[in-house]
Amino acid sequence: MNDLYKLLENADNYLKEDNEPPEDLILELKNMVQDGGYIGMAQINPIAGDIEYNAKKIAKYIKFANKINLESLVFPELALMGYPIEDTIDRHPVIVSENVKWLKGLARISENTIIIVGFVEPRNCFEGKKYYNSVAVLQNGKIQGIVRKSLLPTYSEFNDYRYIEPSNVSGCQAPSLLGTGKSSEQSSKLYNGYGISICEDCWNDDEFFERKLYDINPIKDMAAENPKLFINCSASPTRAKKEQLKHNMISFIASKYKIPFVYVNQVGAIDNISFDGTSRMYDSNGKLIARAKSFDEQLMIVNPYKNIGKIYPLTKGLEKSLTEQKVFTLEYESDLERTYKTIIQGVRDYFKKCGFKRAVLGLSGGLDSSVCAVLMADAIGKENVFGVSMPSHITSSESKSDAEELANNLGINFDEASIKDMINTTTQCLNGLFDKVETKWGKYYDCKTSSFTNTPNNIYPSFTPDNIQARSRAMFLWGISNEFASCIPIATSDKSELYMGYATINGDMSGGFAPIADVPKTKLFAFARWLNENREVKNAIPEAIILKKPGAELAINPKTGKPLIAEDALMPYEFLDEIIWRIENKNESYNDFLNTEFVYEKHENISKEQKVEWLNKFYRRMSTALYKWSILPPSVIVEARSINKYDYHQPITSSHINYKGVGEEYINAALD
Amino acid sequence: MNDLYKLLENADNYLKEDNEPPEDLILELKNMVQDGGYIGMAQINPIAGDIEYNAKKIAKYIKFANKINLESLVFPELALMGYPIEDTIDRHPVIVSENVKWLKGLARISENTIIIVGFVEPRNCFEGKKYYNSVAVLQNGKIQGIVRKSLLPTYSEFNDYRYIEPSNVSGCQAPSLLGTGKSSEQSSKLYNGYGISICEDCWNDDEFFERKLYDINPIKDMAAENPKLFINCSASPTRAKKEQLKHNMISFIASKYKIPFVYVNQVGAIDNISFDGTSRMYDSNGKLIARAKSFDEQLMIVNPYKNIGKIYPLTKGLEKSLTEQKVFTLEYESDLERTYKTIIQGVRDYFKKCGFKRAVLGLSGGLDSSVCAVLMADAIGKENVFGVSMPSHITSSESKSDAEELANNLGINFDEASIKDMINTTTQCLNGLFDKVETKWGKYYDCKTSSFTNTPNNIYPSFTPDNIQARSRAMFLWGISNEFASCIPIATSDKSELYMGYATINGDMSGGFAPIADVPKTKLFAFARWLNENREVKNAIPEAIILKKPGAELAINPKTGKPLIAEDALMPYEFLDEIIWRIENKNESYNDFLNTEFVYEKHENISKEQKVEWLNKFYRRMSTALYKWSILPPSVIVEARSINKYDYHQPITSSHINYKGVGEEYINAALD
Repeated sequence: MNDLYKLLENADNYLKEDNEPPEDLILELKNMVQDGGYIGMAQINPIAGDIEYNAKKIAKYIKFANKINLESLVFPELALMGYPIEDTIDRHPVIVSENVKWLKGLARISENTIIIVGFVEPRNCFEGKKYYNSVAVLQNGKIQGIVRKSLLPTYSEFNDYRYIEPSNVSGCQAPSLLGTGKSSEQSSKLYNGYGISICEDCWNDDEFFERKLYDINPIKDMAAENPKLFINCSASPTRAKKEQLKHNMISFIASKYKIPFVYVNQVGAIDNISFDGTSRMYDSNGKLIARAKSFDEQLMIVNPYKNIGKIYPLTKGLEKSLTEQKVFTLEYESDLERTYKTIIQGVRDYFKKCGFKRAVLGLSGGLDSSVCAVLMADAIGKENVFGVSMPSHITSSESKSDAEELANNLGINFDEASIKDMINTTTQCLNGLFDKVETKWGKYYDCKTSSFTNTPNNIYPSFTPDNIQARSRAMFLWGISNEFASCIPIATSDKSELYMGYATINGDMSGGFAPIADVPKTKLFAFARWLNENREVKNAIPEAIILKKPGAELAINPKTGKPLIAEDALMPYEFLDEIIWRIENKNESYNDFLNTEFVYEKHENISKEQKVEWLNKFYRRMSTALYKWSILPPSVIVEARSINKYDYHQPITSSHINYKGVGEEYINAALD
Repeated sequence: MNDLYKLLENADNYLKEDNEPPEDLILELKNMVQDGGYIGMAQINPIAGDIEYNAKKIAKYIKFANKINLESLVFPELALMGYPIEDTIDRHPVIVSENVKWLKGLARISENTIIIVGFVEPRNCFEGKKYYNSVAVLQNGKIQGIVRKSLLPTYSEFNDYRYIEPSNVSGCQAPSLLGTGKSSEQSSKLYNGYGISICEDCWNDDEFFERKLYDINPIKDMAAENPKLFINCSASPTRAKKEQLKHNMISFIASKYKIPFVYVNQVGAIDNISFDGTSRMYDSNGKLIARAKSFDEQLMIVNPYKNIGKIYPLTKGLEKSLTEQKVFTLEYESDLERTYKTIIQGVRDYFKKCGFKRAVLGLSGGLDSSVCAVLMADAIGKENVFGVSMPSHITSSESKSDAEELANNLGINFDEASIKDMINTTTQCLNGLFDKVETKWGKYYDCKTSSFTNTPNNIYPSFTPDNIQARSRAMFLWGISNEFASCIPIATSDKSELYMGYATINGDMSGGFAPIADVPKTKLFAFARWLNENREVKNAIPEAIILKKPGAELAINPKTGKPLIAEDALMPYEFLDEIIWRIENKNESYNDFLNTEFVYEKHENISKEQKVEWLNKFYRRMSTALYKWSILPPSVIVEARSINKYDYHQPITSSHINYKGVGEEYINAALD
């Protein structure tokens, strides 16, 4: 059947470019599927809330499916609205009534091909939430049935229960119920023999999962009627549920019930969440028969009754089940292609969906900004990226030349602009101001007297000069963003530094988008090497950049007389990244860390005092970083867990949490 | 019983200051309540996640209750953990095991008095979420029973279902179930005749509410056993459910079931959410017998069997049911005391719980910064506030003298620091950089050719000079924050401007806290007058500041030659604030606005074209403001609805939402 997929790819290219495929191509395809039983899987990239854009895109595929006379055409969850839409539908209910109008418009253009398309269904009643997360079944000009989501993921990046009422009825219900908020069991839960479910609805098999999150199981309910096919409309991001888990689970369900399974997933990014697509079909033995592309819109056609399909290659790393990784490791290699595509799609869609076209970023000659430059060039085009080297009095000549070499290798725009004058003037202005403030306020806090004093009483150096540099650079970048149309600055902070609050407010952590905010430092080194080896233009990142020890070049280390190295100010990145990984993946705490060996300890001899010092520093710094997390620019969720606002909520004022834990004796003494 | 409350207030002052009340006072109180039936309502202010701090506070009240031999002592929802704690307990489960340890410690110090205290209960099982939101009943050294929350609010500022499993059993269960995740109906749902529920559990009466959000009703379940008393442990913020509604509802329930009702609420602020306390007791006729103070920790004692209690005055505005306000009005007077206390508590607790002591803010001589200065002085003490006037070449001499007069009136620290040098240097540096960038990039976007050009083709003025001023000021303020211990800068943006994105990134919208981010401009004028009349020192805000038209003094209006007025750049604030109010309170949209009369239109003749222009401008500006909302500093939720991240989630990329709505014909044409 290779011919079918060659023709289909050809047609798909027309559809993706918003063109109608030529008539002869349509006829040829129609001919190839004339024996019936072919199902279209429309893996599309919607814009959240842009009903008209989404409806027009959906209509294009419907008309094509009508023309070649497919049995059915399946779209992702909430295809008409885009997922997630969050509270927008609560505050602006007009977009829900609009999405129903457009749904009816789509129903009118439906013909013999069954169309299965996700939308937000209003509930005009006096019980429960205002909406269902529904799928409509369209055929012959009419809405023929509706399916409503029963299991509502409300954790990590999912917030379904904030605005969606769970359905207590599985499978297909009568179209007359649409919008009423009423539900009723039909004589059959199936439509045309299809058992249709929505995303999380199929994630609750009590034999497959150790932890059963919900009481009900729509798949089991529908299986009782022996459907000829399971169809699941999804919007499942690349990270929280990993490919391996998804594959095993769907395969398990198909073989358990001896029913083929068609799974259609959303692709593209909405704000911080990147969806990988990778739609697929399994036969009734649970064997993978078809799998669409990852990170790309695609119309895939399968025949589940004759086991016809094509398996496109999986993006490397998608198959890796991060949730099953039991220990921290520095072997990132296998996840780097997925990391790359996740970020590229995240950046590209954010720019496209917001209407931005260009980006400016500071190039320090360091790892973070270099990797960001590569990613931006690949995501939005090298001509649309401007790298600016902004040396201060501390910046080494190597840093400047490394930055320029990188820019030349990438072919992005580049210039140098010294911030020395700005630093001098700002420092002078600030010192004048500080002198004034000092006459009324002490600089330091004296714990003994609970008062402020101008007598230095601690050993912390002042970060003010460092921050002036970082903020001056941000001033330059935001200036370009203001002056040049459709351009935003890029924040280059990485995950390890964000955990430590090692980024300057209104400085390097500010920007319109933060591409690598969820990539830990040790992974960034591997990522830089991967980029050098796997991009068309090899070795864009100069070796010197990868080899040098990270440091912001904002201050001089008094001990060495050279720019301060970040690891001296923090702790070894390898140790830091393992703490982060263990918190996010294993929910471990202080005592767990203290009492187990770190990878770093396997090759470096460190004293218990040293370890305690680093752990204390970690918790102290993380506590004060919570505020910074709350003002972090939009970024892409990459890892299994993150500190992204979309994914993780922690009150800033909960920073006094005692992570160490205490014993019963301590408690009794404290309460007595 | 006035004597009881006089003595109690005396004892309460000791408890609040962490001191033990003197023995003679305790004896006198014990004597007064010796006939039994007295219940303590401990309206406390916990720190989220700081189990040790919370446990010690709780223990203090328990020991006092033991000493005077109360029948029982009731704490708020999650008293031991603080509410909300959000995903923190998912990522750092150690604090949950810690809270159980401390709960057991509290049980050990319990004696004859029944202690009812909220905590997070782990669920060590393989079904559902990992935790219950529970209340423990402690007596005679042991945990005697547990009550679990059934109804989980998951909307606006509430996210319970993200980490909490709803209980399917109402009322008291056996202590042996603690931590098991198992539940079972007991022979009685009551403990000592109490029907105990947790917050939202009592918010689902199908006779009282038009919309019933949940299927079950724990109050009704427990009423079947005819309890002698309903007890509800709450953490209910001042805004989402208004006092009038709460009063009517609890009164309704008490009289419906003919059972007295004791309601204990959390007080204090956790991040952006301010809890008003205002705990109360109703008799079996639904009559209010006791009501604690608002916005203050307090131990209140009541006797529900003898209708003994005291009604403390309600903060004005709390009684106002904002959700029932049917139309937009400029009459803010009745809500200003509540607004004041909500913000003061929000600021004070954020500073206290994060460990900050001082604040610095720019004083422009305008309304926003003036109101913020007053609030900061009242919240953290005038000696801890530094106001800096930072004039540029545009700043008028009136602005400078107004700012100084305000500072003097308030008694806060004040100085002036010109930003002219910084602006000059920055402008020079930036112009040099722009020249370089311009050689490679066009400044303007030409829609016709889809390309960038350096030929000006639009009429929008450049905001770069304005933003340089705003960012220079922020640089000064963050500099002080860096250099002086325990100090953060204050962001002075108001709600109307935030809706319009009329605030500079890294400029006036940046800061450690934003006190008035949820106060619309028209309300701020009323608020300024209220502050002038109601604070101890009258008329702190000079009349000239209230009378002048708001404008950022960042640019000159080419038409008038004077600094640009904000309303010229935006639209009349009165019109703008009505749009915002209608969206947030009535969920109205474009066509609703177009087809109904605004308050502004009642006294000003505006053409339909003018109205359309303002509405279009509103949606255009709001769409691009979504990003700015996402990086807004912590602030206090004040109004019925807000754009606070804690309260409202909208994807930034959903900015293309078509709020206008289209007709069937348009849709059919578009899809054909």
